[in-house]
Amino acid sequence: MYLGDVATPALVADGPTLEYNLRTMAERLPGARLRPHVKAHKCTALAKLQRQFGHRAFCCATVREARGLAEAGLGEDLLLANEVVDHERLAQIRHWPVLVAVDSDDTIAAAARAGIRRVLIDVNVGLPRCGCAPEAAGRLADQARRAGLDVAGVMGYEGHVVGIEDRALRQQLCEEAMNCLLAAHREVGGAIVSAGGTGTFDLNRWATEIQAGSYALMDTQYAKLGLPFRQALFLWATVISIGNGYAVADCGLKGLGMDHGNPTIDDGQVLFCSDEHITFVPGRRVRVGEKIKVWPAHVDPTVAYHERLYISEGERIIEAWPIDLRGW
Amino acid sequence: MYLGDVATPALVADGPTLEYNLRTMAERLPGARLRPHVKAHKCTALAKLQRQFGHRAFCCATVREARGLAEAGLGEDLLLANEVVDHERLAQIRHWPVLVAVDSDDTIAAAARAGIRRVLIDVNVGLPRCGCAPEAAGRLADQARRAGLDVAGVMGYEGHVVGIEDRALRQQLCEEAMNCLLAAHREVGGAIVSAGGTGTFDLNRWATEIQAGSYALMDTQYAKLGLPFRQALFLWATVISIGNGYAVADCGLKGLGMDHGNPTIDDGQVLFCSDEHITFVPGRRVRVGEKIKVWPAHVDPTVAYHERLYISEGERIIEAWPIDLRGW
Repeated sequence: MYLGDVATPALVADGPTLEYNLRTMAERLPGARLRPHVKAHKCTALAKLQRQFGHRAFCCATVREARGLAEAGLGEDLLLANEVVDHERLAQIRHWPVLVAVDSDDTIAAAARAGIRRVLIDVNVGLPRCGCAPEAAGRLADQARRAGLDVAGVMGYEGHVVGIEDRALRQQLCEEAMNCLLAAHREVGGAIVSAGGTGTFDLNRWATEIQAGSYALMDTQYAKLGLPFRQALFLWATVISIGNGYAVADCGLKGLGMDHGNPTIDDGQVLFCSDEHITFVPGRRVRVGEKIKVWPAHVDPTVAYHERLYISEGERIIEAWPIDLRGW
Repeated sequence: MYLGDVATPALVADGPTLEYNLRTMAERLPGARLRPHVKAHKCTALAKLQRQFGHRAFCCATVREARGLAEAGLGEDLLLANEVVDHERLAQIRHWPVLVAVDSDDTIAAAARAGIRRVLIDVNVGLPRCGCAPEAAGRLADQARRAGLDVAGVMGYEGHVVGIEDRALRQQLCEEAMNCLLAAHREVGGAIVSAGGTGTFDLNRWATEIQAGSYALMDTQYAKLGLPFRQALFLWATVISIGNGYAVADCGLKGLGMDHGNPTIDDGQVLFCSDEHITFVPGRRVRVGEKIKVWPAHVDPTVAYHERLYISEGERIIEAWPIDLRGW
């Protein structure tokens, strides 16, 4: 099958670029130094490729991601890096060796009731999202142990830092966040300090493992940071209409995560997206029926719209992987 | 089943509000005056309810929507209000009485090659998206007839008008757009002038049928216009973490269309959304485990993320409908 034969809109990753990204990361953060975050691709086939590059532990944001990885034979060492209070849903993954993030008495109680055995204390290191106050981490670790849970360490995601374009500032704020996490770790104990993302993968020298995910496929937002990873992921779209000074292709809001703004295209300027359309000013002559590449601004919510990910090598399609970890 | 038992995040529509919206529209635009656009809900069960309210013709944005409606027994009179150049995909719906929008020689050729029999000439009435120049409509109609197609009329979506908050301006620009469409219609012929949306459903007196879709479920963007429809659709989410001055619930970018900005919540202010989180400042005391309603800013790309739509009546869940028209 050839790229030209794929019905549009379709999610495609350039295979050699994907492999380049996986290899580059595996050289910089080999084996257990990286815990790839599957929320960025939601695809067990891609996770298997990450395992081939030496990473056997995975990070998840949802119970479905964790369960799906385990059922696909990738459940050796999972971290559900998110709080869940629904003990019935959480119980779906109790039979696998999964670490679950907790940050409150309620989430500890839910984990214990669900039959989960190992937890990390999730510490807020500056991003106003989940995670306990650093000074509460020790008390929560004691509480978790009293509830019969094994406390394996801490996690703390410096999400307020990973997207900062100035590398020196990114480094400085990463260090501040990790000092906060290490202080909490001293109160909590356990072997694991889990943190980091694609934007701090080489700056965060304090975490025992880095939770990067976007590095595999990349997007235009992360491309601004000068990281050693390349954009592999694009939407394959067909020009369906030519207007007066603009053209329209058949991919839109139902195939693109838009929270980071418009996607970009080569040789042209995107004006706006509608449900099933992207209107752009072409920088060269285009014709109806022509295929174009649309580069998403944010990989994670883009992938979550699609049923499958095609892998291309030049003009050939070499794989079609189900995006099988969607939903919750 | 009760609302409190639904695992979160979940897409829920308040049943009585949905019925109120459908009844209100059916009274204002009865029967064939409305061609409900299913792209706004992608749910054949909801389309069946629209048919019970008297509308037998439906509007679609994708081949999958048209095929899905037809296979669900709703294929009596379908309009694919979008250009398709992939004749193989288009051929999937040739055996049903479907009208297809065309706006160029290429899309006419694709429709003819696919075995489609009836088309509308799609006319650009001001929105820089699909649609031919008004002065080209007559020539394209002739071209379509030469290709063996029955030209049933015109369509022209005033998408640049439907969201304007000032009603007088919305009315004025709607009239200008429709004058343009009617001029093209005089050159094209045929019985149908299809146009309009939820924002112009009662202003557009020139179209023979209105393509509104959002009115059924509504969103915060349309709620600003003072229309007689009420917000039925919400994301049901669970508070999973409480921070210093904020709280976090378990719905985020993978469950919400974000092109119209952040969703809103009752009794609180949304700060930002992440992949699986919404961080907000609660206006009252909330606790971990509590459920909240999150009101999406844009209904269409929100629905497209979800596998099912729950229908509630007070605290009870009375239906769980598959969102079965997703994808392409």
